[in-house]
Amino acid sequence: MSFADRIRHCNNFDPARAIPLWAGEHRVGWLRRDNAALLSRHDTVFRVCDDQARLLPEGDAEFVSGAVDEVVETLVAEQRVPKWRNETFDVAPRWGEEPLFRVDRGAVPFFGVRAYGIHVNGFRRDSNGYSLWIGRRASNKQVAPGKLDNLVAGGIGNGHGAYGTLVKEAEEEAAIGPELVARAGAAGALTYRMETKTGIRDDVMFVYDLEVPPDFEPRNEDGEIAGFGLMPLDEILERIRTTVDFKFNVNLVILDFAVRHGVLRPDDPDYLDVANGLHRPLD
Amino acid sequence: MSFADRIRHCNNFDPARAIPLWAGEHRVGWLRRDNAALLSRHDTVFRVCDDQARLLPEGDAEFVSGAVDEVVETLVAEQRVPKWRNETFDVAPRWGEEPLFRVDRGAVPFFGVRAYGIHVNGFRRDSNGYSLWIGRRASNKQVAPGKLDNLVAGGIGNGHGAYGTLVKEAEEEAAIGPELVARAGAAGALTYRMETKTGIRDDVMFVYDLEVPPDFEPRNEDGEIAGFGLMPLDEILERIRTTVDFKFNVNLVILDFAVRHGVLRPDDPDYLDVANGLHRPLD
Repeated sequence: MSFADRIRHCNNFDPARAIPLWAGEHRVGWLRRDNAALLSRHDTVFRVCDDQARLLPEGDAEFVSGAVDEVVETLVAEQRVPKWRNETFDVAPRWGEEPLFRVDRGAVPFFGVRAYGIHVNGFRRDSNGYSLWIGRRASNKQVAPGKLDNLVAGGIGNGHGAYGTLVKEAEEEAAIGPELVARAGAAGALTYRMETKTGIRDDVMFVYDLEVPPDFEPRNEDGEIAGFGLMPLDEILERIRTTVDFKFNVNLVILDFAVRHGVLRPDDPDYLDVANGLHRPLD
Repeated sequence: MSFADRIRHCNNFDPARAIPLWAGEHRVGWLRRDNAALLSRHDTVFRVCDDQARLLPEGDAEFVSGAVDEVVETLVAEQRVPKWRNETFDVAPRWGEEPLFRVDRGAVPFFGVRAYGIHVNGFRRDSNGYSLWIGRRASNKQVAPGKLDNLVAGGIGNGHGAYGTLVKEAEEEAAIGPELVARAGAAGALTYRMETKTGIRDDVMFVYDLEVPPDFEPRNEDGEIAGFGLMPLDEILERIRTTVDFKFNVNLVILDFAVRHGVLRPDDPDYLDVANGLHRPLD
């Protein structure tokens, strides 16, 4: 096993198994063919052909979202979509643009629409190198229960923006108040496209670094994290390389941290597979 | 003009204007069609078809390099390749693998083989933010004469490796000795593919950050840099956005610095075009 395996796992999307979903002139999602077949029954909302599908309702975001929600209701009833998360994600032609519609978070991979999240590397640095605060996800989490996670991470729900989500999740997930969170610095964006049980994850992760003081200890407030521990980065990297203990996409966030902080270095023959592999083109 | 324009300029490669160059089972270069036509006259060394070209000699790197050199000699005489640089670059199937052959640096874009270089952001940080040491390239440089450049940058010639090139170029270009250069930290890899006058640049830039002390002043030793100046990052970014004063690929290195250090931030609607655009897949 290797670092590159972790990256490949998050990029197992196979275009032959999916068709693009269009809304007007914008490609807004990727439908796995079995999911597309399910949508073809809802022919007032989706027109499904062999090589593409189209969202038919036209109008403001509220109107289109309502039409999509009716379909999602059926999909939830049929257990094709895990369950309502009661948190909606914006679907826009491009990051920062007005949404064309919104969709319940649980249905995001079914439609393969692009989702955005934030991840925070909470770290300490001393003469022995870097250590990161690592959380263990609660065993009742829908995605990746019990897996190891970043200090703070969360999807960007509609209207929150990246920084707003960072502030909100830092408070809820780790009891990080405004003063400490203000020290977090944006450090880049990672991208991957992955087939999951539900469909396709087409994800963008905005990465932040937060150097925390020695007396800082995170405390989970929302029950989503079972506990936190401080781990030396070298140990984390070895565990990433040889196990699947970390949540699939958290492997990528920590590898990027190691690349940006010079812990992984160019003269390693596998360096480029990692440094370049963390960034998939946004087509 | 925008940051994204600078990135697009470095990624103007159009696959319709080029054919792949193969050596055995490895795609080792991209030949612009006019360059491919020139190679077709050397049919003991290259077999050129409509949709691909193939390097024919088989054997150790020295033997293959000799055959390629004979072709390069003609190309130089015909002024299709600028001139001999008397510095060779390795051509390997993949970073870190044994080279299949070597080629004179001046001919690298003609064959569109992948080239690797190092770039160093030499920076200072105080309460006003970041400043970078910027060099102005000598007016007799073959590539981008007179343009603004990083504190240190250089191509990785055969056998030097990334770190070895960093140490060598830091000394030659900016009189940075072993003690200071040891503080430079690897920070990632940027990639682009660009059509130039000579052919195709398929480039990987290994990026290093070097925080320099306030009393540091660079001094060029090899005549390749006309002078250095310390510039506030905000001013540099505005100049990158609105001018072409910086060497084409140096724009990318500094944008990456701004992304990694949180000077550009996710809530900017153009953020992803920059943060993601700096990384082109290594196909």
